[in-house]
Amino acid sequence: MSDFLTAQKKDFSKWYTEIVLKADLADYSPVRGCMVIKPYGYTLWERIRDELDRRFKETGHVNAYFPLFIPMSFLEKEKEHVEGFAPELAIVTHGGGKKLEEPLVVRPTSETIIGHMYAKWIQSYRDLPLLINQWANVVRWEMRTKLFLRTTEFLWQEGHTAHVTHDEALEETLRMLDVYTDFAVNEAAIPVIPGLKSESEKFAGAVNSYTIEAMMKDGKALQSGTTHFLGQNFAKAFNIQYLDEHNELQYVWTTSWGVSTRMVGAVVMSHGDDQGLVLPPRLAPIQVVIVPIWRQDEERELVLQAARAVKERLQGQLRVHLDAREELTAGWKFNDWEMRGVPLRIDIGPRDIAKHQVMAARRDMPGRQGKSFVSLDNLEIAIPKLLEQVHQGIYEKAVAYRDSHTWEVENYNEFRGAVPRGFAHAWWCGDAKCEAAIKEETKATIRCLPLDQPGGEGHCIYCGEPAHKIAIFGRAY
Amino acid sequence: MSDFLTAQKKDFSKWYTEIVLKADLADYSPVRGCMVIKPYGYTLWERIRDELDRRFKETGHVNAYFPLFIPMSFLEKEKEHVEGFAPELAIVTHGGGKKLEEPLVVRPTSETIIGHMYAKWIQSYRDLPLLINQWANVVRWEMRTKLFLRTTEFLWQEGHTAHVTHDEALEETLRMLDVYTDFAVNEAAIPVIPGLKSESEKFAGAVNSYTIEAMMKDGKALQSGTTHFLGQNFAKAFNIQYLDEHNELQYVWTTSWGVSTRMVGAVVMSHGDDQGLVLPPRLAPIQVVIVPIWRQDEERELVLQAARAVKERLQGQLRVHLDAREELTAGWKFNDWEMRGVPLRIDIGPRDIAKHQVMAARRDMPGRQGKSFVSLDNLEIAIPKLLEQVHQGIYEKAVAYRDSHTWEVENYNEFRGAVPRGFAHAWWCGDAKCEAAIKEETKATIRCLPLDQPGGEGHCIYCGEPAHKIAIFGRAY
Repeated sequence: MSDFLTAQKKDFSKWYTEIVLKADLADYSPVRGCMVIKPYGYTLWERIRDELDRRFKETGHVNAYFPLFIPMSFLEKEKEHVEGFAPELAIVTHGGGKKLEEPLVVRPTSETIIGHMYAKWIQSYRDLPLLINQWANVVRWEMRTKLFLRTTEFLWQEGHTAHVTHDEALEETLRMLDVYTDFAVNEAAIPVIPGLKSESEKFAGAVNSYTIEAMMKDGKALQSGTTHFLGQNFAKAFNIQYLDEHNELQYVWTTSWGVSTRMVGAVVMSHGDDQGLVLPPRLAPIQVVIVPIWRQDEERELVLQAARAVKERLQGQLRVHLDAREELTAGWKFNDWEMRGVPLRIDIGPRDIAKHQVMAARRDMPGRQGKSFVSLDNLEIAIPKLLEQVHQGIYEKAVAYRDSHTWEVENYNEFRGAVPRGFAHAWWCGDAKCEAAIKEETKATIRCLPLDQPGGEGHCIYCGEPAHKIAIFGRAY
Repeated sequence: MSDFLTAQKKDFSKWYTEIVLKADLADYSPVRGCMVIKPYGYTLWERIRDELDRRFKETGHVNAYFPLFIPMSFLEKEKEHVEGFAPELAIVTHGGGKKLEEPLVVRPTSETIIGHMYAKWIQSYRDLPLLINQWANVVRWEMRTKLFLRTTEFLWQEGHTAHVTHDEALEETLRMLDVYTDFAVNEAAIPVIPGLKSESEKFAGAVNSYTIEAMMKDGKALQSGTTHFLGQNFAKAFNIQYLDEHNELQYVWTTSWGVSTRMVGAVVMSHGDDQGLVLPPRLAPIQVVIVPIWRQDEERELVLQAARAVKERLQGQLRVHLDAREELTAGWKFNDWEMRGVPLRIDIGPRDIAKHQVMAARRDMPGRQGKSFVSLDNLEIAIPKLLEQVHQGIYEKAVAYRDSHTWEVENYNEFRGAVPRGFAHAWWCGDAKCEAAIKEETKATIRCLPLDQPGGEGHCIYCGEPAHKIAIFGRAY
């Protein structure tokens, strides 16, 4: 396939765009900065959505839907919020043939409009906690866009919760970070580092922002989900108050948290290789593709029949596709499904039928190593087990890649050598000036202060002053 | 409950708005014409979405996602289309702090942007049929809005398909009308009449539009889903061509079809009564609510334990909620769940436990008539069966209401008497002038020319000229 797909080592960014287009995940649209999510990419997003949604509901959240348009004056109520988002807004000035009295913003995020509604809905401590999520499109005007990673319009979920106490809201913020981590590891097979964002990288209007950071296969970081502890900032801006048990008015404490279609990009860049996509089995639109193989015409019906029988046996528990196209060779199909990242391929030919078996080929292991024969007696047990092995295999590969591209750096020289290739773990004094100077000099930003800290004390990698936290630095998407 | 909900007979429109708000289906938003769909209403929409989506996938469709914004010039490519939608558009004129060179329209529907992409994707007859659906928000600036029924922003699905032949596209248009009918009858328990729209009522840009028309409990019609045969109108406007088997360029034939959050309004107005909502069991967010009842404190734990056991036994197959709130009386809970339309309530008290039974109360049948005792031995069989009976019961009630408010009218006098109360079946000559005069004089429009026609010939209800089709007239939402 190397003739039609740029090698990752040669130009990872080019590889990414090529495979997103060739595998039919997405396409450019005629609208600046907006993409079309094609059926194969959208099905992957549906799987991401369903697995996240299930976790949200298990943790007590419900879905709702708030308006796309937000009055400009709402955004202006929270000072940091409007400063952060003002440069990225799309503005509706005309509706129904008339100029609007107040321009409407196409939501870049919904804290303000939801805050307004929460002020109406929340009266008493009995109404709390309020745990609502929304699946929606949002718009942030972007200058430099990249399919899935940064587009003017994107799809996401945004959770918005309100609580009686500081601690309960903080607990929720960290619980959802756990949910995101669990999703990334167990569905997307992507190892992530949960941690705190620095002040300069936090959400506009938050007290604290948390993130799950993943390393892509070019050593760059991708922020893959964020949760925000909003304190009482939005509660005060929108007057969200409740009567407590002593009949006194109190402001609520709020959180928000989101994962977007960017996660599709994370999946592509975490696992893909020079042959194309490698999709994590639990999210893959097609988990198993069956390719019937025959040479003589008289074998055709026998092989097709066996292939159909295999499909029928598996399709109750797995997402199975039978590729019975007649105008294409088996070799062409192998390459095609490999490029599309289907985790497991099952080949069936006359010899297999005679031996009462099929051949299973793992997408994540090249050549013979990934091939095994599976007895037909054992199909319903063996195939799911192979898929689990693929999940485990690509997860471990991603961990190994990240670990081999992560350095505990001792001095700024080592730091400068590390960040073009991966992550640097370094002590940081907490001063935004050091952070800014590092960014200026190396293009590396603080990806997070990992929750898992070694403890103790060191010296800031930049200024040498005493430091109590390790930060993870890297170049980011 | 009559003191807190307006009686349907007194003011149906007021009843509707009150119950939508009181049952927490939706709320007004601070953005003109836009509503907030609250969790209970959104869960109902999720159920509608899932049941439709399943049917779309079973009929070979896949989901994708196209941009929210459409260049103004795209809409102008199809003359009738832009004329129909121009008065309803919301326009983005500024993005990222700058005035845009070409204003962007917030999609009112997506035929144009999807047509543009299809022209790129479709090359050969092998790429056809192309069967794509999209779940999305759309915006149509509305002057007079009503929760769920007519809002500036609403949620919907829009299917867009392309075919090699006229007949295949027409077949698809009718197939999706069947899918909508099947959904309405079998999930929403709403009897609908599938039929053809008249020229004056069709979708802007279609050759023919089809509809499923339902009668609400005030005798008015609600268009509940539409499918459009677009001929080659959009294919020619967007140059969607394919190479046929003889290597000649041909225009495709396209269709589109949609169901929106309006369906929630249809559910409310088809089944609700003076006590509140009556939700169809297959769509209800909560199918069964369990109310534990005790008088003495020492009975409390026994009753709660039994209630939890019943919940556990049912929750694998049904959506069950246990209302264990202690600060509220059983009577208050009965009224509350009745108002929220839960199809079946299970009461458990100490006497029931002693008799190894529970009491089941159907929402659709008042008083004793709807109550029955269910042995605990029989729970998993009897409760789903009762839910099926509720489905059947409310469907039959809706059919009976419609039939008793439908008249085969012989003359215009009878017609004028019928349409303020329900549907009039009348011969129509096909002339738009008669249709317009009738609308002017009676406020009744042609809801559809039902697919199921008696045949033969009659005289136009307005002009008396020969007519070959029966039309259904009514006043509509």
